[in-house]
Amino acid sequence: MTKLPPVSFLHRLADAASGETLPRFRTELDVEEKFKPGYRFDPVTLADKEAERVLRDLISSEYPDHAILGEEYGETGTGPWKWVIDPVDGTRPFICGIPVWGTLIGLTLEDRSVMGMMSQPFTKERFWGDEEGAWAQDSSGTRRMRTRSTTDLSRAILHTNSPERYGDFPEVNFARLRDSVQMTRYGGECYAFAMLAAGQIDICLELALQPYDIVPLIPIIEQAGGVVTGLAGERPEAGGHILASANAALHEQALRALNLPSCARGVI
Amino acid sequence: MTKLPPVSFLHRLADAASGETLPRFRTELDVEEKFKPGYRFDPVTLADKEAERVLRDLISSEYPDHAILGEEYGETGTGPWKWVIDPVDGTRPFICGIPVWGTLIGLTLEDRSVMGMMSQPFTKERFWGDEEGAWAQDSSGTRRMRTRSTTDLSRAILHTNSPERYGDFPEVNFARLRDSVQMTRYGGECYAFAMLAAGQIDICLELALQPYDIVPLIPIIEQAGGVVTGLAGERPEAGGHILASANAALHEQALRALNLPSCARGVI
Repeated sequence: MTKLPPVSFLHRLADAASGETLPRFRTELDVEEKFKPGYRFDPVTLADKEAERVLRDLISSEYPDHAILGEEYGETGTGPWKWVIDPVDGTRPFICGIPVWGTLIGLTLEDRSVMGMMSQPFTKERFWGDEEGAWAQDSSGTRRMRTRSTTDLSRAILHTNSPERYGDFPEVNFARLRDSVQMTRYGGECYAFAMLAAGQIDICLELALQPYDIVPLIPIIEQAGGVVTGLAGERPEAGGHILASANAALHEQALRALNLPSCARGVI
Repeated sequence: MTKLPPVSFLHRLADAASGETLPRFRTELDVEEKFKPGYRFDPVTLADKEAERVLRDLISSEYPDHAILGEEYGETGTGPWKWVIDPVDGTRPFICGIPVWGTLIGLTLEDRSVMGMMSQPFTKERFWGDEEGAWAQDSSGTRRMRTRSTTDLSRAILHTNSPERYGDFPEVNFARLRDSVQMTRYGGECYAFAMLAAGQIDICLELALQPYDIVPLIPIIEQAGGVVTGLAGERPEAGGHILASANAALHEQALRALNLPSCARGVI
């Protein structure tokens, strides 16, 4: 393969995953509790496992020489092309019945994210990034997404999943960033990254992400005009602490705030 | 009037509000900033104002002798029946493009909430409580809601809007409750209360609510089997700090945790 798969294949994957996730949303869940390092409570649902299975089946059938990295079943295969998938990103909101979770489907070439989709089956929304741009689809149609032009940190809207883990990472000066922006919101998961691409939110910050939590979102953010990196400004494909911003000027200010030693608060 | 209005009237109100809110969701908003005591940033959108206007027009036309209390235009009229409305509860998620805001429509008789609806027009969901029960409607139909039967606090899922305001209310031992439950989630606004009624979340805690933030939700919670009070166990219609729980046993444990003096943490 020398070119990207068609977007229609991403939609086929999202359709298949939706068939496993949506019927289990807001039902009595068969929740298996898995305690991962750093998490108090990491429920993994049947939806997660079954959706990854159907995604793997479809990918292996269509692109048998591609590698796959998924949340539930690890990495399989080798080669320049690798699919990176998280069948249910946001199992916590899934369990709470709040539709800000999504199925993440990404594709990397030589470890660089080149295509990605976020699908939210309950709201019937899909967000994707391809060679041509970043796109949002809902019941009213498909439209191109563009990030906001906010360049003043004090006017920015910041989104992060939960405040609770920042205590584990004192090198991340979350308090400085939070106190520098106009408004901080919590709990958005992958949906917040999609809203950054859609021009609704200025900055998203997430801690300790796995590659499958962020790889599928990278083309969506970048093709909408946004910037997404690790906190040293490095490429984000490997995961870790990840910052996404609506534009480069804002990104630079946000990185500076986050990297300020905590003891120097108020000095800048 | 001696009996409650028909639920169809609540749907008419929700339809009318939706006509003013949904077209403005995720568009360039004409956001007016209003700084209220205790809030850093309280955006009030045109959606808010226009939706309250159409709600007031419909109510005044159908029930001219009823009083109305709304977020935007205050209290008008007098009498035993009072409509309590918040056209856009959750202006922050509204601005962020995240569909956990809602239009809240409540009715009180002699200051007791007797009927209420939460409408989320983007997801096309409605949740309401009437004399017969608590109901959820989406594209798949209408179903009765029932709260969860969790009675062990350590197994409970807690939802609150934002961690940031707890510092202003040291008498509320949020840390104790947060550390006692299995999982805490943030950012759900009125949608989280609906999910408590729907049996997805066990406890919701919100600080410094206005009557219009909670009155419309009370019948939804109570008719689903839940308990909702102020932190001294008093009726919640007046607002303030509000706790809702899936059942009485859980409510009692949560109230005890919240009311524990902060210095006594770990003693119980």
